[in-house]
Amino acid sequence: MTAETTDEIIARVRDSFAQQGLMALLGAELTDVELGRVQIRLPSRPEVSQQHGYVHAGATSAIADSAGGYAAYTLMPATSEVLTVEYKLNLLAPAAGDHLEAIGTVLRPGRTISVCQLEVFAVEGDQRKLVAAGQQTLISIPDDGSR
Amino acid sequence: MTAETTDEIIARVRDSFAQQGLMALLGAELTDVELGRVQIRLPSRPEVSQQHGYVHAGATSAIADSAGGYAAYTLMPATSEVLTVEYKLNLLAPAAGDHLEAIGTVLRPGRTISVCQLEVFAVEGDQRKLVAAGQQTLISIPDDGSR
Amino acid sequence: MTAETTDEIIARVRDSFAQQGLMALLGAELTDVELGRVQIRLPSRPEVSQQHGYVHAGATSAIADSAGGYAAYTLMPATSEVLTVEYKLNLLAPAAGDHLEAIGTVLRPGRTISVCQLEVFAVEGDQRKLVAAGQQTLISIPDDGSR
Amino acid sequence: MTAETTDEIIARVRDSFAQQGLMALLGAELTDVELGRVQIRLPSRPEVSQQHGYVHAGATSAIADSAGGYAAYTLMPATSEVLTVEYKLNLLAPAAGDHLEAIGTVLRPGRTISVCQLEVFAVEGDQRKLVAAGQQTLISIPDDGSR
Repeated sequence: MTAETTDEIIARVRDSFAQQGLMALLGAELTDVELGRVQIRLPSRPEVSQQHGYVHAGATSAIADSAGGYAAYTLMPATSEVLTVEYKLNLLAPAAGDHLEAIGTVLRPGRTISVCQLEVFAVEGDQRKLVAAGQQTLISIPDDGSR
Repeated sequence: MTAETTDEIIARVRDSFAQQGLMALLGAELTDVELGRVQIRLPSRPEVSQQHGYVHAGATSAIADSAGGYAAYTLMPATSEVLTVEYKLNLLAPAAGDHLEAIGTVLRPGRTISVCQLEVFAVEGDQRKLVAAGQQTLISIPDDGSR
Repeated sequence: MTAETTDEIIARVRDSFAQQGLMALLGAELTDVELGRVQIRLPSRPEVSQQHGYVHAGATSAIADSAGGYAAYTLMPATSEVLTVEYKLNLLAPAAGDHLEAIGTVLRPGRTISVCQLEVFAVEGDQRKLVAAGQQTLISIPDDGSR
Repeated sequence: MTAETTDEIIARVRDSFAQQGLMALLGAELTDVELGRVQIRLPSRPEVSQQHGYVHAGATSAIADSAGGYAAYTLMPATSEVLTVEYKLNLLAPAAGDHLEAIGTVLRPGRTISVCQLEVFAVEGDQRKLVAAGQQTLISIPDDGSR
């Protein structure tokens, strides 16, 4: 078996992201993929809001979860799938601004279990504020779905 | 000041839910509101999926977070607002099925801090399976937004 | 291979507990072991306190973590080991009282990953109050330590 | 009212730490106090172990919780008390080594709610390995205990 190139890994992540119906529904875009670090951007709009007009914690979570999941997936074999085991997220400040930027970073890669750091920033012009922070546990499973 | 009736509390929760743009976008409905317990239903459809066709953890989280938030809000004064401080969710099994049912239940009500239990079931015909479980911390803040 | 009897499983849990130096140091006792549910008792005393005289969150966590870990271990094969992947605990009220009672209950058993509910009660005479609640993820690994 | 000096804040933290019976029982020491960042050291010994001889997750948690709590407390008024609302900790690797070093760092200070990052390193000679990472929510309450 030949090892994947970084370009192949990035392509594999982009293909999988394109299959997530929720990301398209929310209007989220995959803005950066590096080994162990993935960034997703979500424009603010009324369709993703909570009752006070800020971005809903559920939308913030969705992009944070996907960013962390794909960050872990960049370090897993092509023949595996990645599943979120659990995550925890603190909402630090209202998710106001022009758009959100979620960043998932692998804290500990593992053959079975990986752990990621999750950060979400609200961006408005040249202002960038941390509005959510968390930690996520993921599992790598063989492509046949067994675990 | 006259105490709110249960009907007024339920109306207050329904009004707030109706203002969450994200719930409408996802297609989520508020199916039951009781004091200390709220249920939200989300039909499965490709628009809320992850890459394997199951409901995305972000959509699961969104309805779990709203269910817990409104469960806590039923026990808070009408002049307050509720904010999620943080939550943790374990994804126990693939969110397959006809629809999801998220239930938020207040575990510890408080003047400032409340804690809720979060459960999400996947329902298919008469089958009902726990697919996510978690815990959420909320804060009650005066309506003027100070905290 | 012959399946373990319930008595053998309980003996295996008791043997492992007896090897946890920390439980002895804290003065914690294993008070009940059932399949999927374990209870640990910790008498209150100044040696396990925080700065206000209540039981320290660290001691509360220690017995909650061990209760959950052993609850999961009762459902794992004898040839495996159990490790805590992560846990989350809400401290709901001051851990006052004569002693604490931690209960770990398996929410989702799994071949690799198990999830437990954690509860800690403060007991004073016939009063029993929930003072901490949480959720824990565990992994079963082959006895040779690989994962 | 005169603002506290940094020395007064550090003294206030050291006084409170000295009142935590559990830290003395475990053999934990407060090794560094800065504004928004606190470090605690725990020597490895059989009395703080789990069943495989590594430091018990409960002991790891105890020093992580205290480090985060005191980090938040350095940024709170002298007339307040600090309580842990909840925390989540991932155990990333066996807590082996000569001693552990827990570091609590304030991620978001707040008038009511503060959030800290928790890190625990295992140290052996000049090797230093991250063995646990987590996130903690704290509340500042007036000294009279009301909340």
